[in-house]
Amino acid sequence: MKKKIGPVPLIYPVPIVLVGSLVDGRPNYATIGDCAIMGLKPALVVVSLGETHHTTRGILAHRTFSINVPMTKDLALVDHFGQVSGRDVDKSQYVESFFGELETAPMSEACPVTLECRVLEEVTVEHRRIFIGGVVQTHVDEAFLSDDAEPKIASMQKLDPILYALDNRYSSVGRAIGVGYEEGAAYKPNGA
Amino acid sequence: MKKKIGPVPLIYPVPIVLVGSLVDGRPNYATIGDCAIMGLKPALVVVSLGETHHTTRGILAHRTFSINVPMTKDLALVDHFGQVSGRDVDKSQYVESFFGELETAPMSEACPVTLECRVLEEVTVEHRRIFIGGVVQTHVDEAFLSDDAEPKIASMQKLDPILYALDNRYSSVGRAIGVGYEEGAAYKPNGA
Repeated sequence: MKKKIGPVPLIYPVPIVLVGSLVDGRPNYATIGDCAIMGLKPALVVVSLGETHHTTRGILAHRTFSINVPMTKDLALVDHFGQVSGRDVDKSQYVESFFGELETAPMSEACPVTLECRVLEEVTVEHRRIFIGGVVQTHVDEAFLSDDAEPKIASMQKLDPILYALDNRYSSVGRAIGVGYEEGAAYKPNGA
Repeated sequence: MKKKIGPVPLIYPVPIVLVGSLVDGRPNYATIGDCAIMGLKPALVVVSLGETHHTTRGILAHRTFSINVPMTKDLALVDHFGQVSGRDVDKSQYVESFFGELETAPMSEACPVTLECRVLEEVTVEHRRIFIGGVVQTHVDEAFLSDDAEPKIASMQKLDPILYALDNRYSSVGRAIGVGYEEGAAYKPNGA
């Protein structure tokens, strides 16, 4: 029996990322879970930020941003970056930044996977700024590149990302439970 | 040392959901990982589908859709729904559907959490149709409602959702590792 709880965007869990942008010439990073893959070819992503977010200023100024996927060992920094604004704290001192092909999308050396993105579309819904980005280049720590996967990327258990949900808890990834396009190959409804 | 692997949208892991729509008067569901929360107040979500997806037809016709969050026990059905099209298979026979406030957003009884959504914005990038939806109502199985969380929702470990990543593996959620806005409260860079 289901109960109505009002309009709550209960998609769970969500991957936690750091969104990077260049604000007044300085790298800034915001912790968000409002992000996703929007397509593989072309490689598309989406992020949503508040219009007054410091990071948003940098994205609007340069039409570029980065997505950086942290590991659970960095949880304290990641949670901290969700609590303080770049207006009040120079976050660039906490993160060793590097740049790729774009000159205005700072990325974090400490994150094993980073994406540099160009804004393709921008949608405003009330105070939210939603940016659909085209991935220009993806950078992966060599230690995490695997030869036997396509794209060549290590297992989730090794990459050890941070999950979050609206119960306000962080979780790690659990065990592998199956392979895409194999688990359902022999599916029959009701065990028929 | 990081290596460039080309433009790959490596956000990981992603939550797997069933997107529901009404196509020619019949409920249809597509398995996707290209979805996210876009905001809490207002309650916003995003989904991305191929323009030729059967589900997309229903969304374009009615400007409504549902998001249904399955459990790992339903992995075989969920994976199957990612392999077959509603053009070829009547998926409504596999799913016990119900409707909420909208009359064109079928939802799955078997999923503990379902959202009915109205399309607020639509963005086309090449062959992808990206729908930003406003959540009209959220339905949660009573068994999963918790009294001590806000929103009143059970732990991820109990809801047991399905994760997916571009290594083509499904995973379950692991252990809880922290509380939002607490882990970083005392953060100091470099242990200072």
